[in-house]
Amino acid sequence: MYKLYARENTGSAAAEALLTLLGVEYELLAVPQGADWYLKINPRGEVPTLILPDGSMMTESAAIMIHLADAHPDTGLAPAPGTAARAQYLRWIVYMATAPYTSDLRMYYPERYSGNAAHAEAIKEKAILDLARDFDVFAGEMGAGPFILGQAMSAADIYAAMLLNWSNDVDALFAKHPKLQQLYDAVSTNKLVRKVWDRNGMR
Amino acid sequence: MYKLYARENTGSAAAEALLTLLGVEYELLAVPQGADWYLKINPRGEVPTLILPDGSMMTESAAIMIHLADAHPDTGLAPAPGTAARAQYLRWIVYMATAPYTSDLRMYYPERYSGNAAHAEAIKEKAILDLARDFDVFAGEMGAGPFILGQAMSAADIYAAMLLNWSNDVDALFAKHPKLQQLYDAVSTNKLVRKVWDRNGMR
Repeated sequence: MYKLYARENTGSAAAEALLTLLGVEYELLAVPQGADWYLKINPRGEVPTLILPDGSMMTESAAIMIHLADAHPDTGLAPAPGTAARAQYLRWIVYMATAPYTSDLRMYYPERYSGNAAHAEAIKEKAILDLARDFDVFAGEMGAGPFILGQAMSAADIYAAMLLNWSNDVDALFAKHPKLQQLYDAVSTNKLVRKVWDRNGMR
Repeated sequence: MYKLYARENTGSAAAEALLTLLGVEYELLAVPQGADWYLKINPRGEVPTLILPDGSMMTESAAIMIHLADAHPDTGLAPAPGTAARAQYLRWIVYMATAPYTSDLRMYYPERYSGNAAHAEAIKEKAILDLARDFDVFAGEMGAGPFILGQAMSAADIYAAMLLNWSNDVDALFAKHPKLQQLYDAVSTNKLVRKVWDRNGMR
């Protein structure tokens, strides 16, 4: 059985949705903000941490998405390794983790990025600009949709939807890029995903 | 044939080393800093961009590493998808892309993270602290080595070595964490890798 260390409306939401879609048994373990005991499980204190059925652990939400979808290939939530579709799938999962995710962290926690607390407001403002550019690039480069790979939903879409939901102004983002709303809606109308999004207080 | 848009001592170095190790045909295309024509290929202007044999393109250095190693499984540079070793492999590739890589970007380009140029020095100082912590976590969590997965080198090690080489003080980092020097040396003594590192001006 898998165990997922999670906190509501954090990077664990996508992994929780994926575990649910895969139909595998898993236990969800809540990690309160600042819980000391959790540092023994993940020294960075970040969620999610996934405990695999063999007892080993892994971190990094994007890596967890890629691994879980590959470990259960029958569910069709990842293109086969080595294929051209796979290249796009990996590209956008990693992009979400390195571009919008890191812009979000700077937007929500700007005080972490300078020793001088007075810099936080300007760091946040720049993060908001960067986040907008990150999604401009994504919307400009992705295909016709509704999903990243076209008609078939993959783990990349679930991950992207989580990032879209974290935007500073989701309505404005969707008005600017209807394609991104289309993707979000296509993911979120899945009943299993919807249930997880609701549990996480997501749009 | 693959085509790799690259610039010396940037995120393209690991992809270049991997393509060389895989023994596949590829063309290396130099992208000068600020080249306008390149924005048509990659709108973010970042290197690397990989053109696949079918003509499609992909970006994100970590995604490129994962994809290339999977596309040529006979070379043994990636554990099989779904396995426990694979979870660690993906974990550390994604960790390198989201933790040290983004700390490096803040350290080398601190002016990008606030609209106020006077904040750059404090942002850089914080990035240096974050980078040290990123490698503390990695050194504390990785196994006995010399490679991330033990005795067998994988694409994750090549990627990690590139990140180690970008540290602000590599000598100090290796003195603090001999395990990281062991990993770097184990990767860099590979003759094919060494040749690519030399071409990129790497340690």
